[in-house]
Amino acid sequence: MSQSGIRERDAVRDIEALFNPRSIAIVGASDDPEKYGNWLAVRAVVGIRPVHLVNRSRSTVLGRPAVPSLAGLGEEVDLAVVTVPAAAFEEAVDDALRAGVRAIVGITSGLGELGGEHLVRQRALVQRVRQAGAVLLGPNCLGVLDHTSALDACANTFPIGTVGLISQSGNIAIDVAARLADYGMGISRFASIGNQADVDCADLIDSMAAHDGTDAIAVYCEGFQDGRRFARAAARATAAGKPVVLLTVGRGAASARGAASHTGAMVSSDVAIRSVCAAAGAELVTSPAEMADLLQALTRTALPAGPRVAVFADGGGHASLAGDAVEIRSLLVEPFSTETRALVAAELASAPGISNPVDTAGAGEKDIELFSRVSRVLTAAADVDSVLLTGYFGGYRKYSTELGHAELRVARELADIATRSAKAFIAHLMFDTSPAAQMLREGGVAVYRDVETAAWVLERITARGGAAASGVPDVPPPSPPLTESGYTAARRQLASAGIPFVRAAEVSTREELRQAAGRMRFPMVLKALGDEHKSDRGGVVLGIPDLSRLEEAWLDLRQRLGPPAVSVEEMADLTDCVEIIVGVRRDPSFGPVVLVGIGGVYTELLRDIRCALGPVTPAAARGLLLSLKGTWLLTGFRGRPAVDLDAAAEVVSAVSLFAAAHPEIDEIECNPVAVTPKGATALDARIVLADPRP
Amino acid sequence: MSQSGIRERDAVRDIEALFNPRSIAIVGASDDPEKYGNWLAVRAVVGIRPVHLVNRSRSTVLGRPAVPSLAGLGEEVDLAVVTVPAAAFEEAVDDALRAGVRAIVGITSGLGELGGEHLVRQRALVQRVRQAGAVLLGPNCLGVLDHTSALDACANTFPIGTVGLISQSGNIAIDVAARLADYGMGISRFASIGNQADVDCADLIDSMAAHDGTDAIAVYCEGFQDGRRFARAAARATAAGKPVVLLTVGRGAASARGAASHTGAMVSSDVAIRSVCAAAGAELVTSPAEMADLLQALTRTALPAGPRVAVFADGGGHASLAGDAVEIRSLLVEPFSTETRALVAAELASAPGISNPVDTAGAGEKDIELFSRVSRVLTAAADVDSVLLTGYFGGYRKYSTELGHAELRVARELADIATRSAKAFIAHLMFDTSPAAQMLREGGVAVYRDVETAAWVLERITARGGAAASGVPDVPPPSPPLTESGYTAARRQLASAGIPFVRAAEVSTREELRQAAGRMRFPMVLKALGDEHKSDRGGVVLGIPDLSRLEEAWLDLRQRLGPPAVSVEEMADLTDCVEIIVGVRRDPSFGPVVLVGIGGVYTELLRDIRCALGPVTPAAARGLLLSLKGTWLLTGFRGRPAVDLDAAAEVVSAVSLFAAAHPEIDEIECNPVAVTPKGATALDARIVLADPRP
Repeated sequence: MSQSGIRERDAVRDIEALFNPRSIAIVGASDDPEKYGNWLAVRAVVGIRPVHLVNRSRSTVLGRPAVPSLAGLGEEVDLAVVTVPAAAFEEAVDDALRAGVRAIVGITSGLGELGGEHLVRQRALVQRVRQAGAVLLGPNCLGVLDHTSALDACANTFPIGTVGLISQSGNIAIDVAARLADYGMGISRFASIGNQADVDCADLIDSMAAHDGTDAIAVYCEGFQDGRRFARAAARATAAGKPVVLLTVGRGAASARGAASHTGAMVSSDVAIRSVCAAAGAELVTSPAEMADLLQALTRTALPAGPRVAVFADGGGHASLAGDAVEIRSLLVEPFSTETRALVAAELASAPGISNPVDTAGAGEKDIELFSRVSRVLTAAADVDSVLLTGYFGGYRKYSTELGHAELRVARELADIATRSAKAFIAHLMFDTSPAAQMLREGGVAVYRDVETAAWVLERITARGGAAASGVPDVPPPSPPLTESGYTAARRQLASAGIPFVRAAEVSTREELRQAAGRMRFPMVLKALGDEHKSDRGGVVLGIPDLSRLEEAWLDLRQRLGPPAVSVEEMADLTDCVEIIVGVRRDPSFGPVVLVGIGGVYTELLRDIRCALGPVTPAAARGLLLSLKGTWLLTGFRGRPAVDLDAAAEVVSAVSLFAAAHPEIDEIECNPVAVTPKGATALDARIVLADPRP
Repeated sequence: MSQSGIRERDAVRDIEALFNPRSIAIVGASDDPEKYGNWLAVRAVVGIRPVHLVNRSRSTVLGRPAVPSLAGLGEEVDLAVVTVPAAAFEEAVDDALRAGVRAIVGITSGLGELGGEHLVRQRALVQRVRQAGAVLLGPNCLGVLDHTSALDACANTFPIGTVGLISQSGNIAIDVAARLADYGMGISRFASIGNQADVDCADLIDSMAAHDGTDAIAVYCEGFQDGRRFARAAARATAAGKPVVLLTVGRGAASARGAASHTGAMVSSDVAIRSVCAAAGAELVTSPAEMADLLQALTRTALPAGPRVAVFADGGGHASLAGDAVEIRSLLVEPFSTETRALVAAELASAPGISNPVDTAGAGEKDIELFSRVSRVLTAAADVDSVLLTGYFGGYRKYSTELGHAELRVARELADIATRSAKAFIAHLMFDTSPAAQMLREGGVAVYRDVETAAWVLERITARGGAAASGVPDVPPPSPPLTESGYTAARRQLASAGIPFVRAAEVSTREELRQAAGRMRFPMVLKALGDEHKSDRGGVVLGIPDLSRLEEAWLDLRQRLGPPAVSVEEMADLTDCVEIIVGVRRDPSFGPVVLVGIGGVYTELLRDIRCALGPVTPAAARGLLLSLKGTWLLTGFRGRPAVDLDAAAEVVSAVSLFAAAHPEIDEIECNPVAVTPKGATALDARIVLADPRP
């Protein structure tokens, strides 16, 4: 689904010329201070590189000579930043290609983003760029910046730091950068992606993952053209030790509208993107605030090895609120071991809390060194995975100048203790802009103003520390497309893909019914076909014990519902059965997303589901089933035996492979799949084909 | 459960002398700058009131005359602030009472909070205070402050404003006040509650509700001695138009530990406090940040009449993120009506979004007045309940000085539009500390830095606008206490309270079984008694069709489980039945809390429950049932008839009244209650009595 067929799948492209060109040209450079071509030129001419200003109608710009064409320049130019009007864009790009540029930044808007003929022309232009061996960022973008190479080819100013920032919105980039600056952090490289006509998010992630000056990668992206490509790039960056934090849109109600099945309704685009992030090891956030909050910890804090948090407070209120904030998450605030308690007590003359939370009750005012001593104990304790310092620290300077100096010295010690420890150490400080807070941050401690934020961050980094990325699965080559999608056809196709069903036959006459029944065992089931909500309307009759009742039920169904056909089926043995739902929805960006959950009548009420990027192996499917909240239904409860999890996992995997090999399937669902101690049998099947209209 | 029997229930007390005394005495005034008695004295002597300094051993303090005793002074003193050591506290209070003080603030700690004999002595002292017609705040508190009366009898400085602040923690009070100050808000009155020996949270809420200078009341409280008293005071303040925002502790895991039933496990102290707030119309928050965030809107913003939010952005990224943030909550971002769309379009020359979200795509730079024009349209639109301005506004001053001036003028206009409108108008601004943001706040607009915060606040104030407080129910006088709590006794007691059960008999011998069966109709059910997890161990046999099978099942139960007795019961007709759970847990602070939910095997997995302060009327119970997520199970689904909601509501109400009249019951639960179209019948009953040990 790459927009161009000529590119090899996931070949990592060399786009370094975008970030570290030997020379730069501003095409559309201008003297008009209201124009982008002016702002870019002003920044370029004060840079360290040779600069060429291109203007078709003026011979000087900014008091420097300007040329009408790059190709006519007769000099090598690495990077051309093109900010001419839309009508002149293609010509300017072709001119730059003739001049042998290695990279182009297209600022110009009013191109492919308008769709239709504009998009066709943009694609053709990209072909020319690629044939010339160059790369194009944008068009319709805000430019590019690299603090490590002193390249400034965008109109915004960003604080210097180690976060690589990729954004589809200028304002969101500014917003994220301002929040990072509040944390004493900043940007290594920035790229505005615009239309992603050639260079896309995945290329930029690959490039930043390989960049020495970048520690983490922040992505704001509204549209993923080839979602799997993005996912694989994010997985590569993760594997290279550069966390990818993704902010995107589409959590709202709209994305799940129009779904035909439970699966369709429950696998929203938000669920799809969560599955992508789980597969790639990327971190999904919902706001610029969360992005900066998480990046602060990811670039400063060790990942906890487990969920045990030591809360270290200097007052009862903050101790309680921090304890609550941590405990309502998937983290633990448990009493310390006898040993740890004794070590803490030895450092605190008298304190209301020497177990967990530690509460010094404001003793810091008389003994500021206790913060270092207790932190040393906590980071060394065998029963502690993370330390959360919470409360008044940073405010002691209000008591006296001497105490302020001592506090700053202790902040330095705390930072040393934190960075030398393999444990996570983060701080929530009321006075989060105090000199002590800044000293902590400079020394490598993530500091937050809100304890809820600190607890949320701890939960996220603990989850990250505990689970490796599940990996981005490959989608198999397409099988010959399905042409039928009715119940009987769906059943047949899935059965031939290895999914077990009970015996069944589609019948239209009483004679067919009798013949079919003759080949099966009672009790049987009748299902009226042609109605998607058959069980809602009494279209399913269960437990029919003999032929005469079968015929009665058939007549009744015919009279009440007048179905085009009826399916007669053997009734499955449901002893000790747990009903699950197995489904796949094809996300337009990310492809098949697999869903498993507790099925049956409570499916949507329970919403006890797990999703993953498809297809999934039986082992991965087993993991999903075992991570359901209601997993105890499957592993035996109330004296009932465990059901056959392996058989259930095989069904999930087979359905996911079938769906992945059929890109024409929008939604596929088996609900319920009856899982008993003896095996798994699909009792219903539904396939929704993509609307063939373009 | 008031700590003293002499006080009439909820008589509103006059504690004005705490906040506006005619004269003040500092008892324990000191020259030592490390002592609280020094800090308080320094602040008192610069105040507007006559001040008396009391010190037993010094004749001058701060260069002013000091007296050894208040009673010996021969002058009237309204308020005595006592900060002597614990051993001298009682004597100092008695001395102050002899001098005729009307109010005492007890700073001293080391008293009732230590429990035991200390608590007994503290109670006796409170009796003397009350007999003298005085009131006591604390002891073990940080003091009191009133900006409207220029009283400063506490050691902290607070910004001036209209929020009444009641806190059990000094640091949390400072934290909340600092956040309010960031929003240009502050404190009218502050009271530190300490041990709540006499004056408690409820008294202070009543006092602040009656105080002209207070618009809203912020409470941080860790312990509620008489929770219903607190709830009724909060309800009175709500009714008087003074919102109460409560921050408390105990959301963590500990509170639900040790519960014996599903109800006990699901009605945590957090659920109880939520029920209290719903009853009283108070707002529960989880952090100082949330407290300030919500108070900003409650004191500045009209309550929305409905969930329809108009998102108004000046860029695509913020438009999308704001739309998402609003839509994932119980709010709507729906396309505008044709009329509203036309009116918006008329104000925007060309913009990517003229429906909802409105996206001006940065046109504000050329036409800053569009913010006013569009805001006028949106606040006047019939299809809009709230307006959320989001994005870059506040940053336009970066373009030029002129634009900065214009932006400030527009901010003034926006504030006027917002405050004149009956709609809610709130802002999320990237530049939330810009002059324009401050102008908006001064003009009465709630402004936030995070769009998630703005959306959360909108959801909270929309909920507040849509639902009146349900009211704090009275607890009936206690009935004679129960002495038995086994299954058969619980069944009998509940049946006599009006809860329908099927016919049943407890039998111990085969002869008793036969006799009992002779009085009932088949099919029957056998339940092994004496085991709380009977159905988990095969101790329940359903659908026994005749006497011989009944005897077989009885023998089998006896052999397998050896129960002390067996209950034989008619099997209920479960046609079209929905199983619900009905329970009550007694919260130690707030009394009975009622729980209803979808019952049966999925109870804890679904956690589809609603809780309310008990007892509840049948009408209130009906409301709870109809607010379940799975309410469609009750109102008819898949062609099934609706069940008898009124009968179910009667059961809930009767169980809640029974529990409320039996304070010795810790937990009571009927699970399942079978609700069919014909009525409601309890199929199981469980009563857990309070541990009789003190």
